[in-house]
Amino acid sequence: MEPAQRVTDEQLKELFPDLPSGPLDKYRQKASFDWRRLKLVYETLNTIKLKKQIWNFMESHPLFQHSEVTPTLDEERHIAVKRMYTIFNEKFLPLERIAEDPRLFQAETEAMFMFDSSLAVKVSLTFRMFSNMLTGSGRSHHLPIVEAVENGEIGGCFALTEVSHGSNAKGMRTTATYVPETRQFVMHSADFEAAKCWVGSLGKCATHAIIYAMLISKGTNHGLHSFVIPIRDPKTLKPYPGVIVGDIGEKIGLNGVDNGFVMFNNYAVPKAAALDKLGGVDDNGDYRSPIRDPKKRFGASLGILSGGRVHITSISTNYLVKAIVIAIRYSAVRKQFGPENAAEEMPVLEYQQQQLKLLPHLATTYAMKLFSVWLGELHVTITINNMMGVEDPSAAARGMELHALSSGAKPLLGWAARDAIQNCREACGGHGYLKAACLGDLRNDNDANCTYEGENGLLVQQTSNWLLGVWPRRHGAEHITPLGTLKFLHNADQLLKERCPWNTVGDMIEPKNLIQTYKWLTTFVLKMTYEKVSKLKSAGKNNLEARNESQSYNAITLSLVYAENYILNHFYETSAKFEDAACRNILLKLVSLYGAFLLEKHLATLYIGGYFSGEQGLLLRDGIVQLCADIAPHAVSLVDSIAPPDFCIKSVLGRSDGEAYKHIQNNIMSYPESMSRPSWWRDVVHWRSYVPAKL
Amino acid sequence: MEPAQRVTDEQLKELFPDLPSGPLDKYRQKASFDWRRLKLVYETLNTIKLKKQIWNFMESHPLFQHSEVTPTLDEERHIAVKRMYTIFNEKFLPLERIAEDPRLFQAETEAMFMFDSSLAVKVSLTFRMFSNMLTGSGRSHHLPIVEAVENGEIGGCFALTEVSHGSNAKGMRTTATYVPETRQFVMHSADFEAAKCWVGSLGKCATHAIIYAMLISKGTNHGLHSFVIPIRDPKTLKPYPGVIVGDIGEKIGLNGVDNGFVMFNNYAVPKAAALDKLGGVDDNGDYRSPIRDPKKRFGASLGILSGGRVHITSISTNYLVKAIVIAIRYSAVRKQFGPENAAEEMPVLEYQQQQLKLLPHLATTYAMKLFSVWLGELHVTITINNMMGVEDPSAAARGMELHALSSGAKPLLGWAARDAIQNCREACGGHGYLKAACLGDLRNDNDANCTYEGENGLLVQQTSNWLLGVWPRRHGAEHITPLGTLKFLHNADQLLKERCPWNTVGDMIEPKNLIQTYKWLTTFVLKMTYEKVSKLKSAGKNNLEARNESQSYNAITLSLVYAENYILNHFYETSAKFEDAACRNILLKLVSLYGAFLLEKHLATLYIGGYFSGEQGLLLRDGIVQLCADIAPHAVSLVDSIAPPDFCIKSVLGRSDGEAYKHIQNNIMSYPESMSRPSWWRDVVHWRSYVPAKL
Repeated sequence: MEPAQRVTDEQLKELFPDLPSGPLDKYRQKASFDWRRLKLVYETLNTIKLKKQIWNFMESHPLFQHSEVTPTLDEERHIAVKRMYTIFNEKFLPLERIAEDPRLFQAETEAMFMFDSSLAVKVSLTFRMFSNMLTGSGRSHHLPIVEAVENGEIGGCFALTEVSHGSNAKGMRTTATYVPETRQFVMHSADFEAAKCWVGSLGKCATHAIIYAMLISKGTNHGLHSFVIPIRDPKTLKPYPGVIVGDIGEKIGLNGVDNGFVMFNNYAVPKAAALDKLGGVDDNGDYRSPIRDPKKRFGASLGILSGGRVHITSISTNYLVKAIVIAIRYSAVRKQFGPENAAEEMPVLEYQQQQLKLLPHLATTYAMKLFSVWLGELHVTITINNMMGVEDPSAAARGMELHALSSGAKPLLGWAARDAIQNCREACGGHGYLKAACLGDLRNDNDANCTYEGENGLLVQQTSNWLLGVWPRRHGAEHITPLGTLKFLHNADQLLKERCPWNTVGDMIEPKNLIQTYKWLTTFVLKMTYEKVSKLKSAGKNNLEARNESQSYNAITLSLVYAENYILNHFYETSAKFEDAACRNILLKLVSLYGAFLLEKHLATLYIGGYFSGEQGLLLRDGIVQLCADIAPHAVSLVDSIAPPDFCIKSVLGRSDGEAYKHIQNNIMSYPESMSRPSWWRDVVHWRSYVPAKL
Repeated sequence: MEPAQRVTDEQLKELFPDLPSGPLDKYRQKASFDWRRLKLVYETLNTIKLKKQIWNFMESHPLFQHSEVTPTLDEERHIAVKRMYTIFNEKFLPLERIAEDPRLFQAETEAMFMFDSSLAVKVSLTFRMFSNMLTGSGRSHHLPIVEAVENGEIGGCFALTEVSHGSNAKGMRTTATYVPETRQFVMHSADFEAAKCWVGSLGKCATHAIIYAMLISKGTNHGLHSFVIPIRDPKTLKPYPGVIVGDIGEKIGLNGVDNGFVMFNNYAVPKAAALDKLGGVDDNGDYRSPIRDPKKRFGASLGILSGGRVHITSISTNYLVKAIVIAIRYSAVRKQFGPENAAEEMPVLEYQQQQLKLLPHLATTYAMKLFSVWLGELHVTITINNMMGVEDPSAAARGMELHALSSGAKPLLGWAARDAIQNCREACGGHGYLKAACLGDLRNDNDANCTYEGENGLLVQQTSNWLLGVWPRRHGAEHITPLGTLKFLHNADQLLKERCPWNTVGDMIEPKNLIQTYKWLTTFVLKMTYEKVSKLKSAGKNNLEARNESQSYNAITLSLVYAENYILNHFYETSAKFEDAACRNILLKLVSLYGAFLLEKHLATLYIGGYFSGEQGLLLRDGIVQLCADIAPHAVSLVDSIAPPDFCIKSVLGRSDGEAYKHIQNNIMSYPESMSRPSWWRDVVHWRSYVPAKL
């Protein structure tokens, strides 16, 4: 990996030619930093080049041209499949290059998501996730299946959720009953509610599925296990007898992905279908596992899925990047009102209200970008080390911490993107409601991030449960936190005695001070939640009740504050060490805004806990307003730095030339039949022909 | 209007037969009140009967059957038009019945919106809004046009917004230049940015448009005036020469409505096109107006539009009703997890987190419902009195107060619906992401409410400007507030000295105490904002700057708090006087939850202002949690009471029989081609045929 400081201005200019001159020039001239160089806070030459290669390929390929009209559901799925195989065939990123440079994994995914989310999801589900599961949970006799996927001969999918069971994996009802006489498993779904459901790529395409089912042998239910099950004949794409498979129909978004359902009617498969590395039956049907404790086995089997959560932090970030680019560019060219008798109206970005609506989310975008790149790289590195059998004494502790962090960060980032995209939509006013503005699609696609790979509300419980377990062990327990997400906790009791000492806006929004406040807040909410649970238990509540009754304003807040705290710290540390002074300066402003914006949402708790008093909260609010005003002149260059090519932005409002109105005109005028009389015009003029007159 | 107490149980049972027995029975049996009787808090026998009549008509009419598959844009518009004329032809609500019972107006609109938002918008734009404008701004020679609309011979639309000007009406650039020689106006659009845009019903259908244009005569620009302009030939639906008209294409939602644009190329129309009741030119081109002050004239001309805002408070409510019905019914039948070794899992509605996600929004739904019914009735009554020339000495003051209240309430309710619908979507988990759950459509349709008829962010400035003007006149100024939205203000200085005296959860959530707290909050934020503006002006800022720089955390909050305060008071007063004790009891619980939920969002400000201290904020939060637990057993009956028929709910998750999984199954299995091989299956199996192998 090339250190950022060695990348020359010439290299950057070659990779990123000047943006088109136009209405955005005024803002671009105001920027105090080089938008190209700023990229290096989260990019490397390698990631930049890989993305460029993929985007260039797409832009010059007929299959990757955008259609003017929303395709039908069937068309959308069809084009996603063709694009998927086209991308697959290019093999932009062979496995060995990921091992050399783990950041490339996310860069490739980003390139696909920025172009089209359905394409990216299809590629990931059909090939990557399926192969990873086989490699992670299967054994050597499964390798031919992995090879068949890698040759594009078959296509996979992953089936855990059932119609009536999503979050509660233990309640799943699909069964795999072992029959020693035939050495087969008989797969069965008792009813439609036990059907596997929401399985991406299963609706129309997959030939094989990884199915989670209750393994039953000799009358004993050994719990949820995974199996690789042939679903459709790869030569005809027709389902095998005993398999009832179909498409679940239209969704709110991501409609290029054919989510499906499958039911089994006593469908027999060879014993080798079991992905039994972590446990399974022998030929006689006796259960064997290298992990004795069923709870640990269940945990290890689900732990393999944590990659999904890590992945979603960057998916949310990708959607948010597009939305904020669109909204800020448009706000810089849209003019409305202004001083009386002024020659020109003012760009709406100059208004305080618009700044507050957008700029905290711009800061959030940078925080999320830096964090998700770091988390993705960490996860890929850990996965590779695991595969290579690298010994690491802190692996178990780090695994748990990573589980807690990703279970808090995935909901946090999905929700942050949700709120930011909505603000971007509204900040673009009427034209933001055009389908061609693309903000509606971003919202619809991101919406899924709040639900899949662990429903947000349930996922945050994973984080809070871990934190509540850590609290009594907080003294001298650095080994709990190899990633450092809790490195301040040994000092918790001292920390809680602190009171906010800052009494000017400047002090209040200093990054180090915001970080100090966040430490206090995280510790306070952790202690408050712990005491709440203890109180409930003392009052005779059982575990389930105590956990249930301590969620609102306690455990949920705890998980989010914990993740926010880490992301803020990470944002600060990465920014503070960036070598280019001009870039560092603007990054630290964004750190301040991000931290202050987050804290403002917890302002009441800062008062309740006694950390804030009097009018200190006003200082924080004034600080946010001031930071927004400081950052506004640089906002266009800040989005230029993170923006994908116009080809990916698609939006009529957000192109790099800033010619929003011209693109609107072009889009409206060239929309098929926009200017012609509807074919059904007679039903307007002669409506009496189908509506009988009332007597 | 029949007083509620005179409606018998027998009448109610006849109008509302028992709901289908099934999984929701358990909850229904828990309700402490009669869900039918609860309707009478906002319904009358008249409104109930009218809605039933309309819904029965729709349900039995072939054109009003829902399609399984999302129609194309063109199909969606076509069906909306056919339904529009069909409804129009029925004349469910003749004008004279509205005069007898003003509530019927909103009941009719509700019936249409609950079925399909596009239909309702089309009917309203094509007939109602167009006629109202002609009657309000036109003169006797315009009556034949009104008659032609009433006979369905022509169709209208309303064009104010331009491509580059929405909120800033004074910046509009369409011109109407008077030519005395020909006694004509020449309509002209300088360029595409001056095109009228987003005009509902103009894209494909309208024959006539009300156009706002700068009236120019003898070289003088007299400002924005309205004109009724022929756009398309009613016999052929072809545009007239000089008119460039078209459709703006697909939107995020409301796609049955054909929003359009129009440009004029020196298009001459007779002088009679001017809707010049409030001002215009004489035959010579000299300007005459009954209102001398151009500012007042402009205000009066735009004042006619306030009906739109009033209307949107109930549109938002309708969307929210559907969403909350869907989410609560589904949460009552969806079971997940539960006590260890329990025979059955627990309905998710029993979990604290789910309750907090939904029940505050259920309380909000009731608050919005009651408020929007009241506001709608008030507005219709005022309009009718105006038309009939009823003398009213407080008319001017009430007009201004209503303008301020509706300008705050429209954004507040649109945003409340936005947040609630999103929570409902997420609370329904994966299946909530199905298009057939209908939550995505509700979100997409409601999204427009945040933008049209006054962009929310700008609209709230109308409210705060009025409030800031009132503050210095607060002493003994009851005549400012004939509607009573500020009746506590004369006592402001005393009020601000109060500190929260409640130290138990019970006291904290008592409706009267919450209302007292809200009075303090509203006054505090008003004073704080006033002082902020004064300080900015003292520091040398001009009016525009001072207003701009006092928006965030001040003026915007002020407008919303003011509207919240009134809606909370109205909710309380309406509930407290409802005669049925069981209904009253649950309503007052909802009032408490609504008030506490709203206040919690302003908790930091309560501390900053010194009204709260110590841990009082925790009492408020505990109160919310406790109220949710108290209300949960009644939640299903609370939504039964406000739910439209299943035929309108549409969602697979929200039907009154509670059989969510059966409806999901039915929907998935019967979705066209859900179980068949895609026509493009060869592009999966033989993908090499279109993707060349890499060498």
